[in-house]
Formats: sequence, C-alpha cells, structure tokens
Amino acid sequence: MAQGTLLYAQSGGVTAVINATASGVIREARARKIKVLAARNGILGALREELIDTSKESASAIQALAHTPGGAFGSCRYKLKSLEIDHAKYERLLEVFKAHDVRYFLYNGGNDSADTALKVSQLAQAFDYPLTCIGVPKTIDNDLAVTDVCPGFGSAAKYTVVSVREAALDVAAMAETSTKVFVYEAMGRHAGWLAAAAGLAGQSADDAPQIILFPERAYDEAAFLKQVKKVVAKVGWCVVVASEGIRYADGRFVADAGAGKDAFGHTQLGGVASYLAGRVKDELNLKVHWTLPDYLQRSARHIASKTDWEQAQAVGEAAVRFALKGQNAVMPVIVRSSDSPYRWKIEAAPLEKVANHEKKMPAGFLRKDGFGITAAARKYMEPLIRGEAPLPYGRDGLPKYIALKNVAVKKKLPAWKS
Amino acid sequence: MAQGTLLYAQSGGVTAVINATASGVIREARARKIKVLAARNGILGALREELIDTSKESASAIQALAHTPGGAFGSCRYKLKSLEIDHAKYERLLEVFKAHDVRYFLYNGGNDSADTALKVSQLAQAFDYPLTCIGVPKTIDNDLAVTDVCPGFGSAAKYTVVSVREAALDVAAMAETSTKVFVYEAMGRHAGWLAAAAGLAGQSADDAPQIILFPERAYDEAAFLKQVKKVVAKVGWCVVVASEGIRYADGRFVADAGAGKDAFGHTQLGGVASYLAGRVKDELNLKVHWTLPDYLQRSARHIASKTDWEQAQAVGEAAVRFALKGQNAVMPVIVRSSDSPYRWKIEAAPLEKVANHEKKMPAGFLRKDGFGITAAARKYMEPLIRGEAPLPYGRDGLPKYIALKNVAVKKKLPAWKS
Repeated sequence: MAQGTLLYAQSGGVTAVINATASGVIREARARKIKVLAARNGILGALREELIDTSKESASAIQALAHTPGGAFGSCRYKLKSLEIDHAKYERLLEVFKAHDVRYFLYNGGNDSADTALKVSQLAQAFDYPLTCIGVPKTIDNDLAVTDVCPGFGSAAKYTVVSVREAALDVAAMAETSTKVFVYEAMGRHAGWLAAAAGLAGQSADDAPQIILFPERAYDEAAFLKQVKKVVAKVGWCVVVASEGIRYADGRFVADAGAGKDAFGHTQLGGVASYLAGRVKDELNLKVHWTLPDYLQRSARHIASKTDWEQAQAVGEAAVRFALKGQNAVMPVIVRSSDSPYRWKIEAAPLEKVANHEKKMPAGFLRKDGFGITAAARKYMEPLIRGEAPLPYGRDGLPKYIALKNVAVKKKLPAWKS
Repeated sequence: MAQGTLLYAQSGGVTAVINATASGVIREARARKIKVLAARNGILGALREELIDTSKESASAIQALAHTPGGAFGSCRYKLKSLEIDHAKYERLLEVFKAHDVRYFLYNGGNDSADTALKVSQLAQAFDYPLTCIGVPKTIDNDLAVTDVCPGFGSAAKYTVVSVREAALDVAAMAETSTKVFVYEAMGRHAGWLAAAAGLAGQSADDAPQIILFPERAYDEAAFLKQVKKVVAKVGWCVVVASEGIRYADGRFVADAGAGKDAFGHTQLGGVASYLAGRVKDELNLKVHWTLPDYLQRSARHIASKTDWEQAQAVGEAAVRFALKGQNAVMPVIVRSSDSPYRWKIEAAPLEKVANHEKKMPAGFLRKDGFGITAAARKYMEPLIRGEAPLPYGRDGLPKYIALKNVAVKKKLPAWKS
C-alpha cells in the first residue's frame, strides 16, 4: 500500500468539467487506498492550511461531482511569483504539506499552475522532501502547450456552437421585420479558440456565423461593416461572433472603446458585442441585438461535450497513476493519435514544457479574409464537441448538481501571515 | 372528408417550441386529410400571397420540426390596426384566403395575433365567407389572458433556472479572489415572469439568485445596493437576476440609464445588467460580471421543458380539431386542473377574452421585500419547467435541427401594394 496523502487543488477560472477531473482524481486515489485532501479555494487554502477531507464524501457524491459544474472546493486567481520573490510562500506550502503528510500534490489549472507545481517540486527536491508534483490541465481558453486540447474547452465550444446555431434560427425567422444583425461575444482574451469553435455551427459561407472576429487579426472597422452589409444583402441577416479580445491595429482592445464614464461619472462597462452592435446600428442603420453569455459559457454543464467530459476524468485518473509511480513534475496531456476516427490517449509531459508557454491558434486555422475558419480548424475541433455528456435530472426539471460537505481538516500549524 | 385548406402563420418573437406547435398542427391536419399552407414570414406572407405548401415536407421532416427552435416559415412583427383603419389589408387577406380555398386560419402568437384572428373572423362573417379563425397561444412573456401558461414560457424559464444555477456555482467557486457579484438580465419588458422563474434555482434565501428585480416594483438603487452589500457580507457573493423592464419610480426604464452617445457620438446601447453591474462596481467597489443572454434564452431548444414542449404540440393539435368542428374565434388554452400532481387539459376560450388583454404577475407571487418569489409563485411555476424535451443529436455533437424545403405555392393574385 502506497504511503502519504494526496492534495488536490483547483486553480483559475472554473469550467463545466473541472469537477469531473476532481472526481477522477478522487475515485482513482480511493481505488488505490490513497487519502485525498482538497485545498479550499485553490492554492490559498494550501497556504492557509484550509484543507478539506474528501474521505467524508460518499461514493455517490464523488460520482455526482463528475457532472457538477463550478469548482467544488473553490478555486482562486492567485499566482505565485518566482522562488526568489515568493520564497516564504513556497516554504509555507511545504510546511503545510509536511504537517499533513502530503506526498502528492496535484494542481489543476493552466500555465501558471503548471509553473507553480514545477517550482514547488523544485523546492521540495532542494529541501529533500519526498513530494511528487503533477500539473493537471484545465482551461476553456485551450491555450496550454503540449496537450492536444485542454479539458474544459470542448464543453465551452459545444455551448458556443449550439447557442449560435439556435440564435441564428431565431434571427433568420424574424429578419424580415426585426433584427438583421446579431452579435455574440465569446470568451478569449488572447486567442480566438472559442470564437473559432462557433464556426462549426455552419457548413457553408452563408450559414451562421457568417462573420467571426479573432484576436489574432487586427480589427478593421471599415472591413467589418462592409462585410456585414454584404452578408445582409445576400442572406437577409447576419450573425457575428466576436472574441472579447479583438484589438485595433495599434493594440487597443475594442472592448475598451465602449467603456468609460457617463455624464454622471458612472462607470460604463465595456464589451465587444455591445460596441460592435452600436457601430452596426449607427453606420448601417440595421436593427441589431447582441449577447454576452459571460460565465454561462464556461459553466454550462447541461450541454457539455462527452469527449471533453471523458478527457477531463481521464487526466484526473492519470494524474494519480503518474503520481503514485513517482513521475514528478509532469502533466498528463491528451495526445491525438487519429482524426478520423478520432482517437486519443494520455501521456506524461514534463511541466517544463508546459509552464509559461502559451499555445496560439495555428495561422492555418483562419480563413484568408479573417472572417472564418478553415477546413484544418474544423478537422481539429469537430471531435472535441462530439457526444453528450450524461447528466441526471431531478423530478424538478433541474440537473442533479451536488454540493459536497467539504469537511475541514483540523489545522496543525500557526495561522499563515501573507 | 372535410373541405378547404388550412393556413397557419407564426407571429411575433419566436420561441424554442413554436415549431412544435406547427408540427402539431400539420400532423393533426394530415391525419384528417386537410391540406396545410403556411404563410412565409407570418401575416406578411398572407398579405403578399407568399404561401408555403407544407405537403411537400416528409413525415420525418414534420416530426423533426417539433424539436427545432426558431420559426420554420418565418415570423414577423406586424400588427394590423382596427378594421376601419386597415380595412384594405383585412380585405386583402380574405382575397388571398378565397384564392387558395383557405377555410381555416390558425394564427400562432400573442395578444395582438388573437386580436387579428378575431377581426379577420368578424370580417369574414360580414362578407359571408365561410372561415374558421383560431388563435394559437405562444409567447415566452407568459402574458396571455385566460390560458394558465403560454407555450414558450416554460422552456425559456427552464433555460433561465439552469443557467442561473450553473453560473452561481461558478461564482461561488471563484468569489474568494474574483467576481463577487453576478448580474443576469432576463427578458420581460412589462412583466417579470422570466426573472421570477429564476427564483426556482434556489430553495433558501442564501441560495442564488439572492436578489431578483421585477418590473412590477419600482427600482430603488439605494435599497438594491444595500441588499447586495448585505448578501455579499453573509454569503460571500451574490447573484442578481434583473428583468430588462425594471423602471424607476418615475417610470423611466433603468436600461435607458446606461444608453446614450459616447464622446465620439457613437451610440451606447443600454442594458439593465450592464448598468447595474456598473453601479455595483462604483458604489460598492466589488468585482462584478454580468450576462445578457438575449435571444439565447428564447431559442434554447437544447434545454427545453418537456411540459412546455408537450403543451406546445397539444395547442397545435387542438387548434386543428377546434377548426374542423367549426369552433370559430377561439383559442386553445391550457387549463390547470391540479398542482400536485400537475394535471392540465386543453379547452377552447373565446378570442374576445384573450385579445388585447395582458396577464400580469399576481401580486402574491412577489416577496414583500420585492427581491424574491413566494411559495405561491413556486407552486405555479415548478411544473412548467419539469421534464426534458427529447432531442436527437447527430454524430457531429449538434442537435438535429431541420431546415424545411418551404416550397412556394404558385401565386394567383396581383401583387399586394401595401
């Protein structure tokens, strides 16, 4: 029987399937008789010694965790800096780990988390403390290096594709006398992965979304308005999907163009869709509506992708296996072995290759005119939204999402002073 | 065998299930050997003699229509005025009906459509043209008189409840270091039915949504901000659901408060959620996010309520039965015979009782403090979101929505001059 405790922590923005990864971790560890603690609110809980004893949760609760969105133990946005600057924090982590016999640290997040896991493992080695650190991938932004796809992306992509297709049916039906242009704002500050996914909603150039705006291309208002006008003339209506991160050629975010203060000094919150809708209205005099799904797109477990859901669990299970085999400072990544039929497997990648790298969208994924995606993009993304992740519903018509008990572990150390 | 043709037209904003009603109409009519034409883009198609021959669609296409959102034949926002003012238009309708042997006119919409169907029937009687007119209920706004509920509302309500619950799990997980207040904007210009439905997402006062803002209560900024502050202090975060139609005590829409022109003369589009989010940020200095689902909430067939879907089909089928029995100037309405177990049936209500009336939300549905719903509201709404309407998905991971052929019927009359 393996020794020591496993500590699992969630990091950064949550997704529709990060709890599926948590469920995979806990189930795999239970099968191997390893005790799992979870940090409350991510790495902050580890620093504060706010730990949760997952052994208090029933098997059925851990099963239900796999289909519950959000972050069951809490997550946080808290980036540890270099070992030099934040040395005290890294040492505190090791103290907490020692106090609770933590020999395996699984950090579920993006680039920053991979970096933190790597640094913790380096410090443990320097201190000769036996610790195996694993980064577990997660992000709807799909910007992690090495892995073919990030768990969380496929479900947010599926939400996007289905929502755009449904809204387009609405717009098409009403265009004769009502809204002619509909603008959908997709998450993606640096890369247009989710906006690109929307492209799967249509097959031909006249299908919605007829226009996609990517952060990878400078926003050119004249070209955009000209294209909207052209599409409306031909199709009768136009659906635009815009990445929140689109910028002007000079680097300014378009989202900031609509932000500011009003005459009363009140904050005017920005937003790409709202701004573009205003421009279409002013310049083309077309009736326009827009949507900002915001968190709905990353929490919509009810329309999660089965591929994504399975991969989210698989990286959690593999993380435990790697940890118990002593594969230190690695991340379980998804390797695509075939497009058609779609086949994938999990491999271990060194955290060094993941930490602080950012995966960009390949240039070959964007159409030459910059308003759509290519066949290569489709080939990559299509398998990721396939299948409907199972979800039990209650008699009340609502998904059976679970709230864990989250029983606190007794503290053993003095309070942490940040 | 019954004689004459049936004309079906969709009116006003479409819903996730208006096509289920269309499917019910066509299936019932086919079973009774009645030919069904559909007006392209609603009543405009009837005026323009732009008619669609639904007999060109296969049985499987009409079956698939029942699970396809949007308006398959097109809808429109076009209100006929009084018989005196718009007499020529009403006469034109009768000419088109005569030219195509239309003896049954089914108009699928809200208050205005019921009024139009009523007037057409009155004119037909005056002209001694044998025509049976039926209003078929539809609207996500749930504001039709007589019927217990409007087909379309239950599905939009289910979308709202599920989305709010999912987003709340996201916010709860991140609140320690990120967003503390999340604002969701629900449709509802005059009545807060959809905002009220969001109340089903929580059971206790501390569950999301902790604050609902209704158009039925004057918006009081100080009281609102105080409540947000209180909830955040107690729960750690707060989810607000606001009806787009909330107003100040003096009658001005809050949505207009954030609208206007920027320094460059560009239109700033309004929005309740965006505005409230800005106020929370300015006055309480809390990190805030907001969502404007817009059309997504009325087209989300993927999360449609089974109760709603069944009722949408049932009113379509009943409309055909009523028509063939010669029950002129009526609407098939949903009558609730029991709350628990939930039981309902379809009855015929005179259009006179429906036309131009508006169903308000009962005062007893709103909590005294104005920020939530009562047990009476729950009892009414709970059955409406129950059950998951079946939806086939393709290998591509997308719902199998259908595009009909919509074959045009040959015109027989001179072009209409509006």
